[in-house]
Amino acid sequence: MPQGKRIVLASRPVGEPKPSDFRVEEYPIPALGEGQVLLRTIWLSLDPYMRGRMSDAASYAAPVPVGGVLEGGTVSEVIASKNAAFTKGEIVLSRAGWQTHAVSDVQGLSKIDAKLGPISTAVGVLGMPGMTAYFGLLEIGKPQPGETVVVAAASGAVGSAVGQLAKIKGARVVGIAGGKEKCDYVKRELGFEDCLDHRDPNLVVKLKDACPKGIDVYFENVGGAVFDAVFPLLSVFARVPVCGLIAHYNDTEAKPPKWASSLMRATLTKRLTFRGFIVTDFAARHADFLRDMSQWVREGKVKYKEFVTEGLDSAPGAFMGLLKGANFGKQLVRVGPDRE
Amino acid sequence: MPQGKRIVLASRPVGEPKPSDFRVEEYPIPALGEGQVLLRTIWLSLDPYMRGRMSDAASYAAPVPVGGVLEGGTVSEVIASKNAAFTKGEIVLSRAGWQTHAVSDVQGLSKIDAKLGPISTAVGVLGMPGMTAYFGLLEIGKPQPGETVVVAAASGAVGSAVGQLAKIKGARVVGIAGGKEKCDYVKRELGFEDCLDHRDPNLVVKLKDACPKGIDVYFENVGGAVFDAVFPLLSVFARVPVCGLIAHYNDTEAKPPKWASSLMRATLTKRLTFRGFIVTDFAARHADFLRDMSQWVREGKVKYKEFVTEGLDSAPGAFMGLLKGANFGKQLVRVGPDRE
Repeated sequence: MPQGKRIVLASRPVGEPKPSDFRVEEYPIPALGEGQVLLRTIWLSLDPYMRGRMSDAASYAAPVPVGGVLEGGTVSEVIASKNAAFTKGEIVLSRAGWQTHAVSDVQGLSKIDAKLGPISTAVGVLGMPGMTAYFGLLEIGKPQPGETVVVAAASGAVGSAVGQLAKIKGARVVGIAGGKEKCDYVKRELGFEDCLDHRDPNLVVKLKDACPKGIDVYFENVGGAVFDAVFPLLSVFARVPVCGLIAHYNDTEAKPPKWASSLMRATLTKRLTFRGFIVTDFAARHADFLRDMSQWVREGKVKYKEFVTEGLDSAPGAFMGLLKGANFGKQLVRVGPDRE
Repeated sequence: MPQGKRIVLASRPVGEPKPSDFRVEEYPIPALGEGQVLLRTIWLSLDPYMRGRMSDAASYAAPVPVGGVLEGGTVSEVIASKNAAFTKGEIVLSRAGWQTHAVSDVQGLSKIDAKLGPISTAVGVLGMPGMTAYFGLLEIGKPQPGETVVVAAASGAVGSAVGQLAKIKGARVVGIAGGKEKCDYVKRELGFEDCLDHRDPNLVVKLKDACPKGIDVYFENVGGAVFDAVFPLLSVFARVPVCGLIAHYNDTEAKPPKWASSLMRATLTKRLTFRGFIVTDFAARHADFLRDMSQWVREGKVKYKEFVTEGLDSAPGAFMGLLKGANFGKQLVRVGPDRE
């Protein structure tokens, strides 16, 4: 029986995940039943939300059980099919997780249109991260021409798309990223008006200088010190789409934000909007996203950058790095070749 | 020269306003210039927002200067006019403040249509409080049939309208009010499904029992212990219009809410919406409000209750009471008779 390889959750991380929280296993690939397909993983997407799945705290999705395969979106090839809707050789978007092969009953599987872009973009700018940026910014943030938009993790998969979409809408965009190299990329390649280093001890002052008219939209994907710097600069009627809090994912103890005591008061007096969302809330409008975003990518209005590590075994290290900002662009794991 | 009487801010209150923060003054009523009208106050509206105007902390409106006449909406009679648009004897809505007479250049003055209801309702259910309920609930809260709506200060001018509007929209409404008498009124007269006493030491447990399917809309006008009880019960996709925080208006030191450390996390995982607003944000749509609300009042779908104190001198005491919930219904001061 052919063998596959998978990475399971060995133990629930306390604080930062460590190598011993992951375990590589080999397993026999089961035979297909009627209606099923066998998938071979080409690309595994690594995304910050996965940290939440490793904990058993209440959230919008059930946690991965200890001993279970870690979850994740994949670009996969159908290498055997007992389902008339899928043919051997087709490339599909799946949630096969951290493994080389997966048997699927085809639920949730969708075919990737390679004409729209490289297949890896199906888990990147044309996939979940791009769609998170698209709906969070356009439906909740609603940037208007001339307004100031601030986004953190600005060179990452979501942040880079948020900033570029805000520019398409005529806003002034200030990014926040980790280190000079990323900031230079965000300014020079992506065309943000400015980009600040979140490690800069003068972040608060520099952000104020970079946003002389205040902040109209803050796309919240990190929390922590960035939120502390942003909060007092929020303008009247500012909108804050909340899609992630990566600075807190490894927290072992929840701490109130610096401005906790004035959060509600400022919400009232400045008429702020805070709205949490996850990308699947907008699933019914996926076609709108794909139509617009693929066009903007083709036109060069939205650029993207991929950060690839090689081989399934690299996933735990890459994921631990992602939570610390070690990646530079969309974090992908190359699990197998495009074609065998 | 005829004399008027007014109440000025003698000193900025620290914590709860005290009688010495107010001063009654007599003043000569000035002669009218061209384009001006002389107003005689009939009704003075007292509302919680006025506490904010007494402080010099940054807010959405400038504070009343020490020594200045306290602000407030009034129902007034035009008793002399040098403006062609207004005739002696007309009843108008004004922001004449805490005084018996005011000279106005007619800016912001509007005529009250007595056919819509008793003229006092122009500062009540058909005025600012009713409009706050209308737009905050319908535009931000957006209650759907069968959803659970919670509103505090449920027998007050805003809260009573919020709950009745939510019922019109088919929602299940749970009020929170101070004491048995108010709760009985809210349940029996206004028809809320339930009403809890915010002083009940078992509020947290009782609110949970009263909202077995969670809370879909929480109309935030008080903050404090009520928010602490509500927060963990908020449902996925819950909306929280934030229009007041009366429990905090006398705070001398800002304190973070009990749930501060999980506020942003819950916003994300439950996809909550918090949105602050003030009634003037919706000024352009005043006609929609007046059309709908006056019809609902006529049809008996929206009832209102007035709590009247007699004479301008009663205003400071009535206002201090309002901040502690001593009023039962819309707080009004009868400054002068309907007709002299």
